[in-house]
Amino acid sequence: MTVTYSLDVASSSFFCLYKLLFRWKRTGFSRSVHNYFSFQGSIWKSVWAELVVWLCLYAVLSSIYRCLLTLGQRATFEDLCIFFDTYSNFIPITFMLGFYVSAVFTRWWQIFDNIGWIDTPCLWITQYIKGETERAKCVRRNCIRYSILTQAMVYRDVAASVRKRFPTFNHLVTAGLMTEKEMEEFESIPSPHAKYWQPMHWLFSMISLARDEGMISSDIIYVDLMEKMRQFRVNILSLTLYDWVPVPLVYTQVVHLAVRSYFLVALFGRQYLHPDNTRVPDYKTTIDLYIPIMSVLQFIFFIGWMKVAEVLLNPLGEDDDDFECNWILDRNLQVGLMVVDTAYNRYPTLEKDQFWE
Amino acid sequence: MTVTYSLDVASSSFFCLYKLLFRWKRTGFSRSVHNYFSFQGSIWKSVWAELVVWLCLYAVLSSIYRCLLTLGQRATFEDLCIFFDTYSNFIPITFMLGFYVSAVFTRWWQIFDNIGWIDTPCLWITQYIKGETERAKCVRRNCIRYSILTQAMVYRDVAASVRKRFPTFNHLVTAGLMTEKEMEEFESIPSPHAKYWQPMHWLFSMISLARDEGMISSDIIYVDLMEKMRQFRVNILSLTLYDWVPVPLVYTQVVHLAVRSYFLVALFGRQYLHPDNTRVPDYKTTIDLYIPIMSVLQFIFFIGWMKVAEVLLNPLGEDDDDFECNWILDRNLQVGLMVVDTAYNRYPTLEKDQFWE
Amino acid sequence: MTVTYSLDVASSSFFCLYKLLFRWKRTGFSRSVHNYFSFQGSIWKSVWAELVVWLCLYAVLSSIYRCLLTLGQRATFEDLCIFFDTYSNFIPITFMLGFYVSAVFTRWWQIFDNIGWIDTPCLWITQYIKGETERAKCVRRNCIRYSILTQAMVYRDVAASVRKRFPTFNHLVTAGLMTEKEMEEFESIPSPHAKYWQPMHWLFSMISLARDEGMISSDIIYVDLMEKMRQFRVNILSLTLYDWVPVPLVYTQVVHLAVRSYFLVALFGRQYLHPDNTRVPDYKTTIDLYIPIMSVLQFIFFIGWMKVAEVLLNPLGEDDDDFECNWILDRNLQVGLMVVDTAYNRYPTLEKDQFWE
Amino acid sequence: MTVTYSLDVASSSFFCLYKLLFRWKRTGFSRSVHNYFSFQGSIWKSVWAELVVWLCLYAVLSSIYRCLLTLGQRATFEDLCIFFDTYSNFIPITFMLGFYVSAVFTRWWQIFDNIGWIDTPCLWITQYIKGETERAKCVRRNCIRYSILTQAMVYRDVAASVRKRFPTFNHLVTAGLMTEKEMEEFESIPSPHAKYWQPMHWLFSMISLARDEGMISSDIIYVDLMEKMRQFRVNILSLTLYDWVPVPLVYTQVVHLAVRSYFLVALFGRQYLHPDNTRVPDYKTTIDLYIPIMSVLQFIFFIGWMKVAEVLLNPLGEDDDDFECNWILDRNLQVGLMVVDTAYNRYPTLEKDQFWE
Amino acid sequence: MTVTYSLDVASSSFFCLYKLLFRWKRTGFSRSVHNYFSFQGSIWKSVWAELVVWLCLYAVLSSIYRCLLTLGQRATFEDLCIFFDTYSNFIPITFMLGFYVSAVFTRWWQIFDNIGWIDTPCLWITQYIKGETERAKCVRRNCIRYSILTQAMVYRDVAASVRKRFPTFNHLVTAGLMTEKEMEEFESIPSPHAKYWQPMHWLFSMISLARDEGMISSDIIYVDLMEKMRQFRVNILSLTLYDWVPVPLVYTQVVHLAVRSYFLVALFGRQYLHPDNTRVPDYKTTIDLYIPIMSVLQFIFFIGWMKVAEVLLNPLGEDDDDFECNWILDRNLQVGLMVVDTAYNRYPTLEKDQFWE
Repeated sequence: MTVTYSLDVASSSFFCLYKLLFRWKRTGFSRSVHNYFSFQGSIWKSVWAELVVWLCLYAVLSSIYRCLLTLGQRATFEDLCIFFDTYSNFIPITFMLGFYVSAVFTRWWQIFDNIGWIDTPCLWITQYIKGETERAKCVRRNCIRYSILTQAMVYRDVAASVRKRFPTFNHLVTAGLMTEKEMEEFESIPSPHAKYWQPMHWLFSMISLARDEGMISSDIIYVDLMEKMRQFRVNILSLTLYDWVPVPLVYTQVVHLAVRSYFLVALFGRQYLHPDNTRVPDYKTTIDLYIPIMSVLQFIFFIGWMKVAEVLLNPLGEDDDDFECNWILDRNLQVGLMVVDTAYNRYPTLEKDQFWE
Repeated sequence: MTVTYSLDVASSSFFCLYKLLFRWKRTGFSRSVHNYFSFQGSIWKSVWAELVVWLCLYAVLSSIYRCLLTLGQRATFEDLCIFFDTYSNFIPITFMLGFYVSAVFTRWWQIFDNIGWIDTPCLWITQYIKGETERAKCVRRNCIRYSILTQAMVYRDVAASVRKRFPTFNHLVTAGLMTEKEMEEFESIPSPHAKYWQPMHWLFSMISLARDEGMISSDIIYVDLMEKMRQFRVNILSLTLYDWVPVPLVYTQVVHLAVRSYFLVALFGRQYLHPDNTRVPDYKTTIDLYIPIMSVLQFIFFIGWMKVAEVLLNPLGEDDDDFECNWILDRNLQVGLMVVDTAYNRYPTLEKDQFWE
Repeated sequence: MTVTYSLDVASSSFFCLYKLLFRWKRTGFSRSVHNYFSFQGSIWKSVWAELVVWLCLYAVLSSIYRCLLTLGQRATFEDLCIFFDTYSNFIPITFMLGFYVSAVFTRWWQIFDNIGWIDTPCLWITQYIKGETERAKCVRRNCIRYSILTQAMVYRDVAASVRKRFPTFNHLVTAGLMTEKEMEEFESIPSPHAKYWQPMHWLFSMISLARDEGMISSDIIYVDLMEKMRQFRVNILSLTLYDWVPVPLVYTQVVHLAVRSYFLVALFGRQYLHPDNTRVPDYKTTIDLYIPIMSVLQFIFFIGWMKVAEVLLNPLGEDDDDFECNWILDRNLQVGLMVVDTAYNRYPTLEKDQFWE
Repeated sequence: MTVTYSLDVASSSFFCLYKLLFRWKRTGFSRSVHNYFSFQGSIWKSVWAELVVWLCLYAVLSSIYRCLLTLGQRATFEDLCIFFDTYSNFIPITFMLGFYVSAVFTRWWQIFDNIGWIDTPCLWITQYIKGETERAKCVRRNCIRYSILTQAMVYRDVAASVRKRFPTFNHLVTAGLMTEKEMEEFESIPSPHAKYWQPMHWLFSMISLARDEGMISSDIIYVDLMEKMRQFRVNILSLTLYDWVPVPLVYTQVVHLAVRSYFLVALFGRQYLHPDNTRVPDYKTTIDLYIPIMSVLQFIFFIGWMKVAEVLLNPLGEDDDDFECNWILDRNLQVGLMVVDTAYNRYPTLEKDQFWE
Repeated sequence: MTVTYSLDVASSSFFCLYKLLFRWKRTGFSRSVHNYFSFQGSIWKSVWAELVVWLCLYAVLSSIYRCLLTLGQRATFEDLCIFFDTYSNFIPITFMLGFYVSAVFTRWWQIFDNIGWIDTPCLWITQYIKGETERAKCVRRNCIRYSILTQAMVYRDVAASVRKRFPTFNHLVTAGLMTEKEMEEFESIPSPHAKYWQPMHWLFSMISLARDEGMISSDIIYVDLMEKMRQFRVNILSLTLYDWVPVPLVYTQVVHLAVRSYFLVALFGRQYLHPDNTRVPDYKTTIDLYIPIMSVLQFIFFIGWMKVAEVLLNPLGEDDDDFECNWILDRNLQVGLMVVDTAYNRYPTLEKDQFWE
């Protein structure tokens, strides 16, 4: 579910961002503002689990150091911690995260641009395929249905939430996106490769049929309609490509491993130590706060930053900020059918406007 | 209101930027230069409130340290401050801000590119839909009106200032963007989803009508006009998408929280301390200026940098640098109607130019 | 005036860049290389004035410290300098400049892409609008003239140099870009908004006229010509948008203020001090060179880097690297009229080429 | 083989990334998840060989230092190590890698966008080239075949795996992509330059033939089909350009050399030393862990980061994350022929859908 | 000459990059791999000259310090060196280089995208301009020739190598790109501005002629051909714009000057010193290696990185990685004429393919 917060930041005032920092939940497309301490899509939700685990491990280590170790063991432990603290800057997480999040962010927008909205196709179909007969109406509705069917087939393979809704092609039939006969036709052409092209082929055939039967009045209109439907198709199909070729696994692994290692090392390096000053003369003693408050802040920001990338990595997944694929399918079907059928040939009668002189 | 300052920097001279640094206000589209110490859109306006709060808190802490604390409490306070000072570099605000502002800046331009200008549509309508009859004129005016109506509907949902102007659809009727009959027609088709498509559907129907009645002389012209109107529609509608799917909330939260935490920590870490040298032998005493002047500079630049992102995050909001949506609507309506009606078929009689040989 | 230096770097040899570093001036479109120690467009010109001011202030402070201050005052001054030196890294100029220059650079290229060249329009007009009659010739010439007129109107509002050349619309008439009658027609339609659209409206009307009178032989050619002229128009008009919505003022202010503050602070922090070693035991004495040579280098590079942004910020201004708007207007007019008039229907007679077998 | 892992990161949960970090293998386009400790496409595979070599060298040096050297030699060795350790930060690998990977990543996506899918061409051919005769079928099939033939010719030159499959043009004949007669025709026009254009020329000739013989019903459809085939051609041909002009060799060399030098220097600089404290009073002794654990982490992350660039540098090669060119060719041929032949004119009979009211 | 190395990195194996690092030369478009220690396009070639000069200067300074200076002079020299060493980090070369190379790299690709290939134009001409007569053949050949002529004219002004080949327009006539008559026609229209448009004007006139004489069968085909030729023209002409408006001189100067200053300062700052310990108590003595090995590495990487930018700055120059403009011209002419003449109307007779069922 996408988390929208534009109205919260309508003007950059003094307190608006504080509102934002403590938000947890607001649902979908609605415009009302729910500024209670919600959980969804916020940094708190992303980070809390890992932070708790990290703090527990830290506490365990700290307790062992403070209570259980003998003097000699403490010395070894202190040496180890100082060692890790000294060399923790060997792990270059800041830059890696910066460039990685930057790359993932760009890719995320490209995916969003290809999500596939039915609006242009349906407005075009309703204008270009003329006819009040039941057959013309049927052609128009089928064009929409085949578009959504393609979209549903693609979404099944790229979005986990849609896969759950339509585990098999039969579920598409049940949902009304395909008829029984179409299912038969679909299965009558066996292919080792995914057949995303088949409903689109039916759609293009519908358009050719409409041209042959004169519902489309000339070739130039026919070509233009084909082109608009192609753009819809290309957008949707590109989702399969983004899904097939993700950000290279090595890149993702390097960045995640680096951040995790950094904080694993920090478990030792950030312990409050009280070494014997004569043994470690250089050690700068600081106040012992028990809770490593600065490390906690650092943890929140770095893990939070990394979570940005995690959330963006698969925008068709089930995170709070992911695109709501099932909603898009339902909306496309409802709007598409309404425009080509209910709204066909309906428009207000011509009348002069207020500003007419 | 957009703050324009191009003419101030027409040439990169020695003093031009100093002029810029102390500007506060210049209104909209006018080209005259008001270089008085205005407030609008400048760094001063963005930062002053938070800076005052921060300085007050700093002063309170400083006063407590200097006047109220006992010697033992001072030692603890000093330890705490040194601790926060030492580890404040754990918070990686520089890079986060750099990459974040970079991402938000890109998005800001994309939104601006989709703001929707009526110029191409109205020039096209006036050339392509021919006819001196009242009916032809009515078709042309309606095409413009429906375009602006769509724009107003979209702006209502994405721009707070337009929402204020048109809190309900009835306000659109009152403003003359819709007639009563159109309002009835609009409401006669119920839909669970936003019906941005309906005025565009009427518009496309108008164009089809014009083609049917011969106002548009051939199919290729008809298709070209449909395409130009579609581009206008796609631009405007993309604003709803940018509004629906903002920069992920986690990203925004991480960056803002990091910057705020940094300066919260700095409240302690930047105190002028006078610790007992024997207790804290490493502490480098510096001159005590009472006002943390370097931290103030740092505060101005980092918070100012963050404000850049805040301002750009929702360019359709009500900040000084945001796009003036109501002005755009008014301008589009005025120019659109003028071009398709007043200017229709008016052009200078052919005559030889000065350079004719 | 744009400063071109491509031929100087035709091959990346050992000395070529040294040539480049000490160049000062080379004019416009000519290709000859003037490698004398010119001034124009080089780093030297951008930086010298500010550097001299900075060095003077430095010298004054240095003299005061060395000659005028009492021992007690010197101690205070030294403390102050050490304080500023220690915390000067609080101002994050490196990253800010990096990201800011990057953003401005991108925008600069986008503006350049929209500068508006008449070549495609005039080649299209001369092919598509046929006819040897004086009327046809007049239509062709007017199409060019109206294009340049629009460009001149837009340039007046975005480029200071063109504004100087045409302070009023009457200057456009005097320059022959508009006739008296057209000026009357232009003024006969009052509008509160800039009327960039009017000459373009005349242009599109000319094309429609040419189609009606059979100079353009078919609708598809007519539509293609309209489209090409529209692209020219959209390019030019986008300049007004770039001018209207600059890089947000806050961003520019933050960066400039940061760089200036940094060097203001450096006036103190970079003084050669000779503190009493017992008072400031940590102070690392270095050799006293009187001139802060490393700070000068730093000044040159950072201010020079910032100047890159300043120059790019308003590419239509009057800096050395800015685009020569007046030259573009003149060139467009000359080439445009020549192609549609002198060169109309002139081409070599068909003959076999050398490689014919 | 592309390594897909989208479903593993469907939602950004607590453990999902841990799954990812220890993945090694999952094959191609299939969607099932094999989360065993595979090797393919992961950071482990990329890094292990170099890490082992580096650790061996480190061990050898360490053993020599600890066991073989005399006291004087140890002192020299220690001085050398301290020298390398002190100045290792002279090598700016972090930024170089960041910017370099960023540039290579962008290029990698551009290549992927031009990989060439037959879907649009074949859907267009099947709609636009009409006719149930054997000749029409033959034209349609040849259009597809010539497209794939061009793709195969290009892939041969840019992808090592395809070169292996088709070492000579005769292998294309054997594979059925070319007939014997076409091979003769192909060879009958000698040219010093690669003749990627020839099969495309045949393809365009086929389309012209189809237009001449009335299989394509009008010029506008003919032009649209030409355009769609051209886009396919331009995509594929751009691969040869990307192959011809890679990321400049100097850039690649600088980055790789820098990273390798850094770790070569680290072989000395990261040794655990036990110098005589009186000789090197500043040396901070740390705990002796024998294995340079922090350096190993650093090695994994930097070499892993560099491996990202290496993998992306030639996306048509044979790395785990490279595009599977042979699979693409086979898939294109199978789908293309099926759509233009088997599926020609097949679509479900019109019937009312579920939602019909 | 472009240096291609894709096949060397076909798979990211253990040794492949080592091969790359020691490559020096491989010629142009050929695919064979010459992995000898060549020189061309590699980092070694770029850096060696400057490195030798730098090392010589270093050696001279080092010798003077070690042999010639008196004890007092040595102390001054040592102070100077320590001063330069301490403040060398004032020069921010890492970031400047990063952002600068990034900007130049992007521009380099844009130039490459506009290099101008004749393939699409010639394939289009051969399909669209029909006729077996000598006149038709002549029209087709002239269209190609005029395209290449424009390209040659543009290349003469932007690429030094082409300028050398065609120092005057007469050389274009001698080379057969222009006939004598065309040269006369070209010179008969005087203009103060470059007349790149003239051969394109002839080309468009040829196409119009072909349409008038019926070689092109309909207006839609005519318009499509005009458009394809226009794209070729726009690509090529954009090269003159990239040449006219380079990366701003200030930017280039700032970066180069910064890098050079840095290493000038390093001549002093990186000397091995043996100061009297009592005079400079803080100085960390390191082992004296005589050759400043870490500085040499740093020199190689930074100068090498800068060389990347130098090479990319003028991609049409004569560096090893620059585009081979003369080869492109020859190739375009040969392929263009072959496709429109030799290959005209030649294609294999229709026959069933292997997979026909």
